[in-house]
Amino acid sequence: MSQYKELKRSCYEANMKLPQLDLVIYTFGNVSEVDRDKGVFAIKPSGVPYELLKVDDIVICDFEDNIVEGVKRPSSDTKTHGYLYKNWKDIGGIAHTHSTYAVSWAQAQRDVPNFGTTHADHLTADIPCAPPMADHLIEQDYEYMTGKQILDCFEEKGLSHQEVQMILIGNHGPFTWGKDAEKAVYNSKILEELAKMAYITLQINPQAERLKNSLIKKHYERKHGANSYYGQV
Amino acid sequence: MSQYKELKRSCYEANMKLPQLDLVIYTFGNVSEVDRDKGVFAIKPSGVPYELLKVDDIVICDFEDNIVEGVKRPSSDTKTHGYLYKNWKDIGGIAHTHSTYAVSWAQAQRDVPNFGTTHADHLTADIPCAPPMADHLIEQDYEYMTGKQILDCFEEKGLSHQEVQMILIGNHGPFTWGKDAEKAVYNSKILEELAKMAYITLQINPQAERLKNSLIKKHYERKHGANSYYGQV
Amino acid sequence: MSQYKELKRSCYEANMKLPQLDLVIYTFGNVSEVDRDKGVFAIKPSGVPYELLKVDDIVICDFEDNIVEGVKRPSSDTKTHGYLYKNWKDIGGIAHTHSTYAVSWAQAQRDVPNFGTTHADHLTADIPCAPPMADHLIEQDYEYMTGKQILDCFEEKGLSHQEVQMILIGNHGPFTWGKDAEKAVYNSKILEELAKMAYITLQINPQAERLKNSLIKKHYERKHGANSYYGQV
Amino acid sequence: MSQYKELKRSCYEANMKLPQLDLVIYTFGNVSEVDRDKGVFAIKPSGVPYELLKVDDIVICDFEDNIVEGVKRPSSDTKTHGYLYKNWKDIGGIAHTHSTYAVSWAQAQRDVPNFGTTHADHLTADIPCAPPMADHLIEQDYEYMTGKQILDCFEEKGLSHQEVQMILIGNHGPFTWGKDAEKAVYNSKILEELAKMAYITLQINPQAERLKNSLIKKHYERKHGANSYYGQV
Repeated sequence: MSQYKELKRSCYEANMKLPQLDLVIYTFGNVSEVDRDKGVFAIKPSGVPYELLKVDDIVICDFEDNIVEGVKRPSSDTKTHGYLYKNWKDIGGIAHTHSTYAVSWAQAQRDVPNFGTTHADHLTADIPCAPPMADHLIEQDYEYMTGKQILDCFEEKGLSHQEVQMILIGNHGPFTWGKDAEKAVYNSKILEELAKMAYITLQINPQAERLKNSLIKKHYERKHGANSYYGQV
Repeated sequence: MSQYKELKRSCYEANMKLPQLDLVIYTFGNVSEVDRDKGVFAIKPSGVPYELLKVDDIVICDFEDNIVEGVKRPSSDTKTHGYLYKNWKDIGGIAHTHSTYAVSWAQAQRDVPNFGTTHADHLTADIPCAPPMADHLIEQDYEYMTGKQILDCFEEKGLSHQEVQMILIGNHGPFTWGKDAEKAVYNSKILEELAKMAYITLQINPQAERLKNSLIKKHYERKHGANSYYGQV
Repeated sequence: MSQYKELKRSCYEANMKLPQLDLVIYTFGNVSEVDRDKGVFAIKPSGVPYELLKVDDIVICDFEDNIVEGVKRPSSDTKTHGYLYKNWKDIGGIAHTHSTYAVSWAQAQRDVPNFGTTHADHLTADIPCAPPMADHLIEQDYEYMTGKQILDCFEEKGLSHQEVQMILIGNHGPFTWGKDAEKAVYNSKILEELAKMAYITLQINPQAERLKNSLIKKHYERKHGANSYYGQV
Repeated sequence: MSQYKELKRSCYEANMKLPQLDLVIYTFGNVSEVDRDKGVFAIKPSGVPYELLKVDDIVICDFEDNIVEGVKRPSSDTKTHGYLYKNWKDIGGIAHTHSTYAVSWAQAQRDVPNFGTTHADHLTADIPCAPPMADHLIEQDYEYMTGKQILDCFEEKGLSHQEVQMILIGNHGPFTWGKDAEKAVYNSKILEELAKMAYITLQINPQAERLKNSLIKKHYERKHGANSYYGQV
């Protein structure tokens, strides 16, 4: 039996949540999960519809883009996942969707403003939108460069990937991550909901202002700070 | 057997309606129900996903924020519930959600205008949006102060909590209440629908005018007045 | 056994379609169906939630607002239904909802423009929005006057109730009718969809123009004209 | 047994996907599939609700609009399908819907701009919106002329029907096609999603710019080019 059985199952289940949570249609999107000890990650095969996806279709890759186990071709976005795993050594899962509102903000090339406590419960910053990739990078290894594009954006904006677990790629769509694949999918759903709320907020009040810093801090700290009191111990 | 068995079940069932009515995702939101005779209220535990929630997870608290029964930590918003129960002695249930359209109006910091009879069937006033909490209050007991913020807003606007059973907290989201937990949840759903209709109304006609007073009175009276003739006797 | 058994069942089934078609929540809305030979109509009882509604709860009324059979109070809008049945002798069913987009146009006090063939397949005119009721009429028999308000609007705009089977009451919501209750409900769903499409159309292009007359005529005639060729013979 | 049994079943299943994918209500829409060897196509009967549709209701027609097999009248749009099959000899299926966002763009008489990679994964051009039909054509054979209208629009804009498998008819709605009926329905769903995303994009940023050519090319090529690497081999 495959030594990656559990990793594949976990990755499979996280992928299957994407259509259940209305984040993808057809073959859109992909989720991966890493096993740091074995130096590999499991990822959705390319172009397989979710209703046909099986645990054994999940592909195991190493961080140098080699297929370690699997008979299908991995997601066309595999190099982006590999790049992020290699550079952010503490993340355990990555999700990519084309969810409606997140893509719309990406197409509008706008950061999603932190308008309220629903946002601040998850991150203090605006959700960053990376500018579209420069032409000379597109001509190189596109999916690899998408990973680089994400890191460059975080560096430029001075963001921490531990706190901000989501990004929009301009004119493309969202990538999210977390301690495992399930958390990465959770962040994709949260991002979609925050993107929808921010859109409606701006339609109601085009001059809507960001949440003030004292409330951002309060909500983020009560959930994620040293003295957090949200959730169970 | 716990003397709070029935209270817990009623509170549990009201909480489970939130995801069924599309008012929450994941662990968002919480509902409580009070037992005035016993001087306690039942409330959702903090950070527990609805699909895992069980009747016995419901926590029993008194009005001074002590846990009377339960092994889980109560909702992080418990002090807000306690404050309202202590001050409004005739309410029986409270609901808090992060529903999409209600939150968007809260983030826009706008009262939801009374644009029609759907609104007037439930309340005559605009749905109030309390301004974001002052910084010196945030630094104190935040959730306790949220309760105070609600009462201050009602006092300032001259509103009755018996007639207006809902409020938006600026940049945060809605709280609703009623004679019991089920009614509080009902008011959360009504608020979300009124918020959605008002949003679309303003997109169609940015100069849309409030329902005129004669119609506000007529619709509210036929449902809630001394000579009401809506519903069964 | 009641001589109205079949009429009640037909009315019941049409009412139950309202929540199934996402046109109502809770106790909103009501549908009636007439039996011209017996001089009565069946209508939903007032304030009964759809999930509790039973065939035997349906109330039988005559055109003078007397209850002929039934133990529940009829819908608070019963006099509006009675007024329409009395004045439009060829209609067989009436539906009233508070569906989201139709109500929003009513609250915006705007006719829904005929923007395309989806609209023209059902009616050639814009969907009329009657102005809010005059104060001296509200003080009289409100629901009776709502019926009068509908007829006045049709007369003023020169519309035929045979061709235009729907109206918006300003700041209130839609009424629709048809040859039977099922058709009235069908018209409520069509109205909601046309209202949603017209809303989005205007957001994309605020200067969007009405469908030109030659196309209005073509689409209406191919479905409803003397030489119609839509549907089965 | 009918020699068209398999063709009818395939056409039936594609039609039944329209309501499942939320692209139609009631009797809206129709899908056809061609058998080039036999010189016929199968199409939905006119005005039959999807919940009543049966495999044997599907009508078989030749390219000259004669019914070859079937007891029902074929879709009122049959001549449009026939015209396209006759002129585009490499397409295998056609779908027509009145889906909400696609119809709204058609009513706004606007091409759907290529705003991002979700769009570019499927086509490089904007989704064309043909101008409403000229009056002298409406008076002729309307549905036949709709086919001509589609070809004229493609010729005028210099588009390839192999690459751009979808069109909006101004003030009417979408037609899509593909190698078979299933692919045509897929394109209808993709069009609806692209239309929704483009709508929201413009609401967030009315000055949103098209995806740049280098990214359009990259995304289209990786999925459809000679060296494509999306999907399984």
